[in-house]
Amino acid sequence: MEKAVVLSSGGVDSTTCLGLAVEKFGKENVTAISAFYGQKHDKELECARKVSEFYGVRHLEINLADIMKYSDCSLLSHSDKEIKHGSYEDQIKENGKVETYVPFRNGLILSAVSAIALSINPDDKTHIYIGVHADDAAGDAYADCRPDFMEYMSKAINIGSYENLVVEAPFVNVDKAGVVKEGLRLGVPYELTWSCYEGGEKACGKCGTCLDRLKAFELNNAVDPIPYE
Amino acid sequence: MEKAVVLSSGGVDSTTCLGLAVEKFGKENVTAISAFYGQKHDKELECARKVSEFYGVRHLEINLADIMKYSDCSLLSHSDKEIKHGSYEDQIKENGKVETYVPFRNGLILSAVSAIALSINPDDKTHIYIGVHADDAAGDAYADCRPDFMEYMSKAINIGSYENLVVEAPFVNVDKAGVVKEGLRLGVPYELTWSCYEGGEKACGKCGTCLDRLKAFELNNAVDPIPYE
Repeated sequence: MEKAVVLSSGGVDSTTCLGLAVEKFGKENVTAISAFYGQKHDKELECARKVSEFYGVRHLEINLADIMKYSDCSLLSHSDKEIKHGSYEDQIKENGKVETYVPFRNGLILSAVSAIALSINPDDKTHIYIGVHADDAAGDAYADCRPDFMEYMSKAINIGSYENLVVEAPFVNVDKAGVVKEGLRLGVPYELTWSCYEGGEKACGKCGTCLDRLKAFELNNAVDPIPYE
Repeated sequence: MEKAVVLSSGGVDSTTCLGLAVEKFGKENVTAISAFYGQKHDKELECARKVSEFYGVRHLEINLADIMKYSDCSLLSHSDKEIKHGSYEDQIKENGKVETYVPFRNGLILSAVSAIALSINPDDKTHIYIGVHADDAAGDAYADCRPDFMEYMSKAINIGSYENLVVEAPFVNVDKAGVVKEGLRLGVPYELTWSCYEGGEKACGKCGTCLDRLKAFELNNAVDPIPYE
């Protein structure tokens, strides 16, 4: 029996991936894995747990904070930098990259999840779902979301696992509005998800990821079910 | 100024890489990183520390044991399996892979080291040295040492780091005897290194890696300077 492991951050994209994986493989064959890497708040991990509960899938958590402790990325709890507001586009114009790029995060999380997938499903081909989407890589905002990064990383994971792992990035060429469209079809519980980079009670509605999320629902003539400040 | 980060396990191959990197970049620009991932013994980490001291380079240690805790690989301390003796060739004939394959270890370590390299050298191009060599991949013994794995993983790391990282695998097409030949030229302190999979006072001389090491020195008409049982 083929299995699936889904990188689950508690946000829109990965939760939609989880919905897809459950539809395709059945909840008993799906494991969700969430990574803590030193984020300023762990609200997204709480959301990831609730989403796994909603779907009735096995949920694992991994801690990569020790690896990221040398980084001064503004997303990390030990950084003094403030998270910048405004669009990714403006940040790229200013710095050549977005300040919320966590060094090689997707490569590290994919590798950790690959190691775990081979360990928990030693006898089954396993599909690893990751919710990167076209907007993440727009203007090279996140280098570790680019389609060519995903292509080479996927090949490395397939070869380095004796071909037992296959990476699935169903939204790598789909924009966030397209992700939400698919999620609305699947009935994804977006009310349980969290995207905001700030750790407030309600989403700030001002950071890059809030702006993207609000726009994606709007383009689907839908209302984002989470409360905003 | 370009920098180098060397994956240092305390063994022959990675210590030779460290010698190469110090020759090319100078000790002040080199960082050695050692990974603990749940190995049965930590003698190799002690050796890695001594080697860094010998070269006068910065030494960092990372702990990936939490990721590997789901694996039952015989190399890991929580596994009940005994480490098999005999050549890799015989093990492959028997099982299709070697029992000492730690799930996606090289991918995971390379990714972790990439994240750290971007963090500690944010303004410099950094070369990441890894000591995989041709014998590791012979007969597909270690899938995550195969030249095509290394090729795709290297491309993923380069792209996913905004092209700030370059992976160097100088021995990927060189056998272990060739590695030792280069190390003898460089004056690598092999007396400080450790390769044996067992945790004894002296190397066992019987496990796959001991047999390979002894043969590599013999082919160079040299004597391995470490004591054997």
